[in-house]
Amino acid sequence: MLDEASGGAASGADMSGEVVTAALLVIGDEILSGRTKDKNIGHVAETLTGMGIDLSEVRVVHDDEARIVEAVNALRGAYDYLFTTGGIGPTHDDITADCIAKAFGVPIDVDPRAVAMMRERFKPEELNEARLRMARMPQGAELVHNSFNKVPGFWIGNVIVMAGVPAIMQAMLEGVAPQLRVGRKMLSRSVRADMKEGDIGSELRALAGEHPDVSVGSYPFWDETRIPNTNIVVRSREEGALEAAVAAVEAMLGRMRAGRPA
Amino acid sequence: MLDEASGGAASGADMSGEVVTAALLVIGDEILSGRTKDKNIGHVAETLTGMGIDLSEVRVVHDDEARIVEAVNALRGAYDYLFTTGGIGPTHDDITADCIAKAFGVPIDVDPRAVAMMRERFKPEELNEARLRMARMPQGAELVHNSFNKVPGFWIGNVIVMAGVPAIMQAMLEGVAPQLRVGRKMLSRSVRADMKEGDIGSELRALAGEHPDVSVGSYPFWDETRIPNTNIVVRSREEGALEAAVAAVEAMLGRMRAGRPA
Repeated sequence: MLDEASGGAASGADMSGEVVTAALLVIGDEILSGRTKDKNIGHVAETLTGMGIDLSEVRVVHDDEARIVEAVNALRGAYDYLFTTGGIGPTHDDITADCIAKAFGVPIDVDPRAVAMMRERFKPEELNEARLRMARMPQGAELVHNSFNKVPGFWIGNVIVMAGVPAIMQAMLEGVAPQLRVGRKMLSRSVRADMKEGDIGSELRALAGEHPDVSVGSYPFWDETRIPNTNIVVRSREEGALEAAVAAVEAMLGRMRAGRPA
Repeated sequence: MLDEASGGAASGADMSGEVVTAALLVIGDEILSGRTKDKNIGHVAETLTGMGIDLSEVRVVHDDEARIVEAVNALRGAYDYLFTTGGIGPTHDDITADCIAKAFGVPIDVDPRAVAMMRERFKPEELNEARLRMARMPQGAELVHNSFNKVPGFWIGNVIVMAGVPAIMQAMLEGVAPQLRVGRKMLSRSVRADMKEGDIGSELRALAGEHPDVSVGSYPFWDETRIPNTNIVVRSREEGALEAAVAAVEAMLGRMRAGRPA
């Protein structure tokens, strides 16, 4: 949750029909080296999609000031929101807050509101120099509460800065979600084809051409018995268009299955 | 494996001391919607790091021609290699090969070498219009074999185009790996601190400052009994510098543990 004093963004009304976009910037050498397998991209993607925010791009960059600042400025300019994960802990390799301050051209310092939040969890003797680094906020930032461990993330402009540890990131996203502006939800329906992708490609192309107002995706998978199969996923913001396309997919599959040798 | 006729890249010699960089472009609406959780970034990161190629950036974009072409041209210009995953299947939403052709400004057509490879797996009647789309290659591309299902990926300039299905992507990466130019490997050692990250932050910062030739990362985790702990990861291409920094980390931890109340 944002501080009540927040003036950073409109409250979370459903602006029907409007498309709200976001990017995610994952910051961390450990992801690019393969040492840590990212678990945040999938969670952020699923959460934003479910809320009515289109995740439009993800980038992963090193713990490198120039790269982070460049990506922050490119992505915050291109999308309605930019979420970042990683690099806001208590150690010297946590440079995200400083990079955000640099990207916005504002100073950064220990924020008494953040210290107050952290006092809920830490004893006075635990609030050492390292932990107080986590209370440093770019000027103008609003705090993002997290129920998991009380150390706040922050929000400045259209950029929401979250931790890299999945449980903490999830608590921060949950904290900030009610404050986000959302658009009309992208609806989706998945139809299991029980046919191979290569056997339905031409017919599916024709169908997609006849339904230009929906997006039709085709995703191969192996079923429980390791037989190749396909999920056809239809996506649209319009319930009616979605249902019409799903019906067309089912009719197409019915025709094709009937035409197959038994 | 590349075709023997390949003239695209130097063979895989260890150019000691040299740094070879790569980017990964993940293409697919299903990743950005959260429907599919990416499993390729971690595998590519780990494989390239192990070979001596630094994965320096990852981007995830939609199945959208303009976005793909823009990302391909930005990333292939910025790094030694660009790997892509996704969008080379038999259906209308598989547009990666066309986008790569467009990014390079070359025509694209069915490649008889690819058709020959696919004949190893598919019966003549299975090589329909949809499956033959998977044999379309930008002019000048070399084929990347895959042992998993015989449908090739391809390599053009410094761009290596792979499937999105993890098992197929892994086979393609394995196929192309021996042909890649590699640099001196980044070595890493992980030391379990048995202390909280916030308790070692100041000392670790000083240590990192005294070892500017290595990178020192700090990664919090919860141990088997859910107690907060920290892995300190030291990385360097120089074995001697790495060992010196690891010894310094262990000495630091020893001093700090001795100073703690029992």
